Amino acid sequence: MADPQTVIPEDAAPTPVRALRWEEPPEGPVLVLLDQTRLPAHEVELVCTDVPVLVEAIRTLAVRGAPLLGLAGAYGVALAAARGFDVDQAAESLAQARPTAVNLGYGVRRALAAYHDAVKNGADVAGAASAALTEARALHREDAEASALMAEHGRALLAELLPAGGYRLLTHCNTGALVSGGEGTAFAVAAATHRNGRLRRLWVDETRPLLQGARLTTYEAARAGMSYTLLSDNAAGSLFAAGEVDAVLIGADRIAADGAVANKVGSYPLAVLARYHHVPFIVVAPTSTVDLATAEGSSIEIEQRPGHEVTEIGAPQGQTAVAEAGGGILLAALGTQAYNPAFDVVPPELVTAIVTERGVLSPVTGGGLRELCAQ
Amino acid sequence: MADPQTVIPEDAAPTPVRALRWEEPPEGPVLVLLDQTRLPAHEVELVCTDVPVLVEAIRTLAVRGAPLLGLAGAYGVALAAARGFDVDQAAESLAQARPTAVNLGYGVRRALAAYHDAVKNGADVAGAASAALTEARALHREDAEASALMAEHGRALLAELLPAGGYRLLTHCNTGALVSGGEGTAFAVAAATHRNGRLRRLWVDETRPLLQGARLTTYEAARAGMSYTLLSDNAAGSLFAAGEVDAVLIGADRIAADGAVANKVGSYPLAVLARYHHVPFIVVAPTSTVDLATAEGSSIEIEQRPGHEVTEIGAPQGQTAVAEAGGGILLAALGTQAYNPAFDVVPPELVTAIVTERGVLSPVTGGGLRELCAQ
Repeated sequence: MADPQTVIPEDAAPTPVRALRWEEPPEGPVLVLLDQTRLPAHEVELVCTDVPVLVEAIRTLAVRGAPLLGLAGAYGVALAAARGFDVDQAAESLAQARPTAVNLGYGVRRALAAYHDAVKNGADVAGAASAALTEARALHREDAEASALMAEHGRALLAELLPAGGYRLLTHCNTGALVSGGEGTAFAVAAATHRNGRLRRLWVDETRPLLQGARLTTYEAARAGMSYTLLSDNAAGSLFAAGEVDAVLIGADRIAADGAVANKVGSYPLAVLARYHHVPFIVVAPTSTVDLATAEGSSIEIEQRPGHEVTEIGAPQGQTAVAEAGGGILLAALGTQAYNPAFDVVPPELVTAIVTERGVLSPVTGGGLRELCAQ
Repeated sequence: MADPQTVIPEDAAPTPVRALRWEEPPEGPVLVLLDQTRLPAHEVELVCTDVPVLVEAIRTLAVRGAPLLGLAGAYGVALAAARGFDVDQAAESLAQARPTAVNLGYGVRRALAAYHDAVKNGADVAGAASAALTEARALHREDAEASALMAEHGRALLAELLPAGGYRLLTHCNTGALVSGGEGTAFAVAAATHRNGRLRRLWVDETRPLLQGARLTTYEAARAGMSYTLLSDNAAGSLFAAGEVDAVLIGADRIAADGAVANKVGSYPLAVLARYHHVPFIVVAPTSTVDLATAEGSSIEIEQRPGHEVTEIGAPQGQTAVAEAGGGILLAALGTQAYNPAFDVVPPELVTAIVTERGVLSPVTGGGLRELCAQ
């Protein structure tokens, strides 16, 4: 073999993570989630038999990540329909469970439209529920396909930007199979470069306050057999200064019409560092993340989350580690208030490229983004 | 009264924090430390009866902070002398307990020189021990005086840079009375602006991985009655982007001859953000932190600390929260390696000013620094 390092035998592939699955009777109809607040210590499934349970799972981040929230929203509508609940009310509460990720509302709207179309066309309750479920499944399939396409476009972009190979990629938050019907967004690109032997190291930002990088990305990187190293978010600057980062790869929760990217808090400082050090800053997201109705970054609503996510941490082993107030160890003086935005916004001029399932946008401009979305 | 907000009645002053104190017989001779790994939940004293206990306290950060490490080093030499241990060996192990903070070696050398001078001049064992202790106490007094002078110089600098008042100051790590014989370095400046009614808000970076900002700075800010807000280090970028930071104030662990500043990891990203947003980035440190023997930033040895500080967190309440491997909750996939530099280096061109007890250096140049130190 010419280059044995690039050959990964099929049977070496790890069992894929299933962040979410639909179960039919007799177990269902239910939506089964992998509870992401319990990872990596525990792989626990959360069975959603109704929409309020799912809404709570979305709020507490048991299910999270932009593309996966779209699937959760669509399946949630299908669940309400299949169980005979008020579908419009369910759709409303699902869409409002978290404000920043545009995909959530997108998934909800698609399943809801399929449901209402079926009703309009004379379907009975079961038929309309089935139409909603069919739409959720279509979205699921599309999402997996989009992952594969983004991975390929991103891999090709890196090959062009960094012809020498041996990439040291820095990523933030969690963007793999846990956020997607497929392999994810930014992580899917890293995984593609790993499979063809060009990934030297994945630097994993721990991603305070909820530590999605530490808890989830290391879990996925370890399963994928990557060389990876975890760091406190503060240490990223040292890596840039030492010339140890070849590119930054992140996902997105919402992309405004001007190309501004809302993503997990800590993305903006990385973008400023990347610019200062002339390192490519690459956003990987499906076009469903683009919200042309939001003109610019400053119009994106940023979710403010409870201060206890910052002032407390951990809980006795085996309990939910981060999502419950009062259960953790107090890290700050009693009565300390915390500023806790879930996201920040990277202006388009700091983004080297946006990789979507339809291709790569670079430079990032409002006109280019509109064109890409109109394809 | 013209401006009642600026008047703080004397009896409102909180009990000063005593991070370190020397006790004579019958309790001593011992060095008593406030165990900073147990704050803010528990105010526990750690009694050092010999140097190995003190070295361990320095390594585990029970005692920490550049100026205070100087005092710990000096009192450690005095302790070895008073207890009849090998003073040179004690000095050696103290100086090497942590590599980056220059003050530690400085304190050790001063007490050791006083000891040897006394021996040379015919002092007996008790007399030489007493000379070492006198020198440690002199350093302690000088440090408190330096704090007061830095606070005054820093306060005046801010008044000049930000004539409108109502400062929103961002700080990183912990730089108050817990690191000093006096009120500290950067925190002392913030406290001075608070006392004269010009501090609107102190933004406190939590400072991962060891959370000195969350655990210690909120404790000091609350005691001082400041308006303060804690944030995850990742959220600092959002504050800069929103124009909510008027200046950054940090301490230093070592300043090289060219003016490069080694400080707690996360300082460098803040300096880059401050530059990008045209916000003053101010370093507050006594001249004992300047190391003219280190030519430039890249020559500063950066302490690499254990990965478990990043991969684990917390422990059952009442136990040491952060310093012991294996005692905490695993935050990452089993076997995850972490990159954990304790410090990073801010190049002089990103530092607006260095505030010392001898005055303010701005712009920061090697020539200016040499001049200041030669005064």
